[in-house]
Amino acid sequence: MSVSHKLAFLLSSNKKIDRRHQSENEVQGLGSSSSQLRVEEEDDDDDDSEEGKSAQFLSFLHLYSLLTSLTFGLHHPKQLRTVVSTANDQPSSALVIDGKLIADEIRFRIAEQVRRMKDSVGKVPGLAVILVGDRRDSLTYVRNKVKACEDAGIKSLVTQFPQDCKQDDVIHALSTFNEDPSIHGILVQLPLPQHLDEGKILNVLKLEKDVDGFHPLNMGNLAMRGRDPLFIPCTPKGCIELLIRSSVEIMGKNAVVIGRSNIVGLPISLLLQRHHATVTIVHAFTKNPEQIAREADIVVTAAGVPNLVRGNWLKPGAAVIDVGTFPVEDPSCENGYRLIGDVCYEEASKVASAITPVPGGVGPMTIAMLLSNTLDSAKRAYDFT
Amino acid sequence: MSVSHKLAFLLSSNKKIDRRHQSENEVQGLGSSSSQLRVEEEDDDDDDSEEGKSAQFLSFLHLYSLLTSLTFGLHHPKQLRTVVSTANDQPSSALVIDGKLIADEIRFRIAEQVRRMKDSVGKVPGLAVILVGDRRDSLTYVRNKVKACEDAGIKSLVTQFPQDCKQDDVIHALSTFNEDPSIHGILVQLPLPQHLDEGKILNVLKLEKDVDGFHPLNMGNLAMRGRDPLFIPCTPKGCIELLIRSSVEIMGKNAVVIGRSNIVGLPISLLLQRHHATVTIVHAFTKNPEQIAREADIVVTAAGVPNLVRGNWLKPGAAVIDVGTFPVEDPSCENGYRLIGDVCYEEASKVASAITPVPGGVGPMTIAMLLSNTLDSAKRAYDFT
Repeated sequence: MSVSHKLAFLLSSNKKIDRRHQSENEVQGLGSSSSQLRVEEEDDDDDDSEEGKSAQFLSFLHLYSLLTSLTFGLHHPKQLRTVVSTANDQPSSALVIDGKLIADEIRFRIAEQVRRMKDSVGKVPGLAVILVGDRRDSLTYVRNKVKACEDAGIKSLVTQFPQDCKQDDVIHALSTFNEDPSIHGILVQLPLPQHLDEGKILNVLKLEKDVDGFHPLNMGNLAMRGRDPLFIPCTPKGCIELLIRSSVEIMGKNAVVIGRSNIVGLPISLLLQRHHATVTIVHAFTKNPEQIAREADIVVTAAGVPNLVRGNWLKPGAAVIDVGTFPVEDPSCENGYRLIGDVCYEEASKVASAITPVPGGVGPMTIAMLLSNTLDSAKRAYDFT
Repeated sequence: MSVSHKLAFLLSSNKKIDRRHQSENEVQGLGSSSSQLRVEEEDDDDDDSEEGKSAQFLSFLHLYSLLTSLTFGLHHPKQLRTVVSTANDQPSSALVIDGKLIADEIRFRIAEQVRRMKDSVGKVPGLAVILVGDRRDSLTYVRNKVKACEDAGIKSLVTQFPQDCKQDDVIHALSTFNEDPSIHGILVQLPLPQHLDEGKILNVLKLEKDVDGFHPLNMGNLAMRGRDPLFIPCTPKGCIELLIRSSVEIMGKNAVVIGRSNIVGLPISLLLQRHHATVTIVHAFTKNPEQIAREADIVVTAAGVPNLVRGNWLKPGAAVIDVGTFPVEDPSCENGYRLIGDVCYEEASKVASAITPVPGGVGPMTIAMLLSNTLDSAKRAYDFT
């Protein structure tokens, strides 16, 4: 069976996958969609009890940060080389990149800067979220984002509309946030109900507040040398942050990105190129993905195909970032499911030099980067450095 | 000597190269700059006498087109498989992609559509060019563009400023063209004198008239799936056109783009991806470019390094598109120089299945695509199909 057939087969027959999270985009384009990412955000919600203890945790992090700053020198990326854990109790020769801990560290730093901003200019960053309907998953993600904002001292506003609301009402709310000087980032929680024109609504969003960074002008500025986007999309920004903080060299390395969605694969490939990697983008039409992946020093996979990347797809010593997340039925877990990624972790962790687990790898970085983008936007607004 | 060293060596020591055309960009980024492209446009100027005979030539093309339409079926891309020549009298096993003939065929079709537009809506497309100073090369390119417009029935306007003009005057002229409904495309001939702020001036250019397609919003729309740019940059558009018209399959093929400039390498890679190739971008930081190129079914090189791509860089049967153009001193030529490309043509043509010569490959396509973009813009303005 060819790999293309295998992908099609995996996409069509893997009955373990909860398909409610799988969008048309993924199937058509081997591209990760926002829905995938959301699953892991949802998983964050499973840790709600932990997030509820964020104050204590931040205190721990403060202590951790203080200790590492004394031992290794503050902000030295190599200090996070020490952040090693063995995920899922699987034997692993690879450095396991602990996204949760790195994200918490970043969120701690953001909270610190927000406090400094408040002391200095008397303002804090503000994030507005527009939520339409009462999809359980959307409610969860929005709750997580609001909580993360609270933990960091960022003001958050949520405007919720009923499922059958009018488009003009949503646009009016967006326009109000556009004009509100205390709001520095605006999110429209997707997907919207089908009767609303997503493109039209998103076009209203002020570029300076597009903290998701999905506007084509942002993407063009990300792609072009000598230009800088206002915002880098959150998940791709998180992936690069994980590589950098894990001391994975990017410049001059061969990187393969699996999947070419607008929100993950494309911007990750552009970012890796900005860091001077030699980037190849693998997608549904690629005939020899495993052969191409085997040439890579860095593999970032956002394919939307569970367990796609096997151990024999990897060059020994490659760094592996797994953006995929899929709920798989598992009665032994509290919620009746557990999460797996695009990468066959058990095999890959024996070949790779560094790898992100699922959950606890890329997922937690998405919200951290959303906070980071909102803070950056506020800094620009208040000319605060 | 490593390839990186070789690149550096080639860039620093090849005394045959007329460096006046070589920009800092090329050296720093292994990226093709507009100056390279212009050299071949200049070469077009060498054919001025031929271009002067354009009316007769278009008549010949009309006959050619009529004959092929009878024989092969009009617009069938395979008809141009027959367009084979042996450039420079070198022995070649490859199909030599005759860019000049293909460009002329396109220009003929554009002229046809312009006539139809004039008959139907009483209007023709209009291109405005802003020229500052009296650089000999810039004057030549502008003259070529104006001539090409004339041949196609496209109205052209040139506003020329002295070398020491004020920025406000240039911006005022641009704004006037922006508002002129008879102008559908605007070009600012680069480079501008150093006292002018190129970025600021280009930002004034109305997006709907940016026929060069270099605006980041255009680039973002080119990069993102499900979106379409208003204009595709001319040289990259020409390269893809050459591949398609030479029946080179792109979908599912491995493509390597050498060079990552904003005006050639980047948009070519995005375009190849839009056509579902698996694209790798090779640049100055790539450690094993020849090894990567050898895996490619399609190699597009816009590196700015003459004779960089040797025969042993290519997989047998690869299609090769050479965007590079360099003047090399040659007293036997009328102008005292001849043009060579990024590809060692003699070696490559024995390995490749199809190859563009230099000159007469990509170069002539750039102006053809400029006319095409201007026509498209006018079609949009007049809602003409």
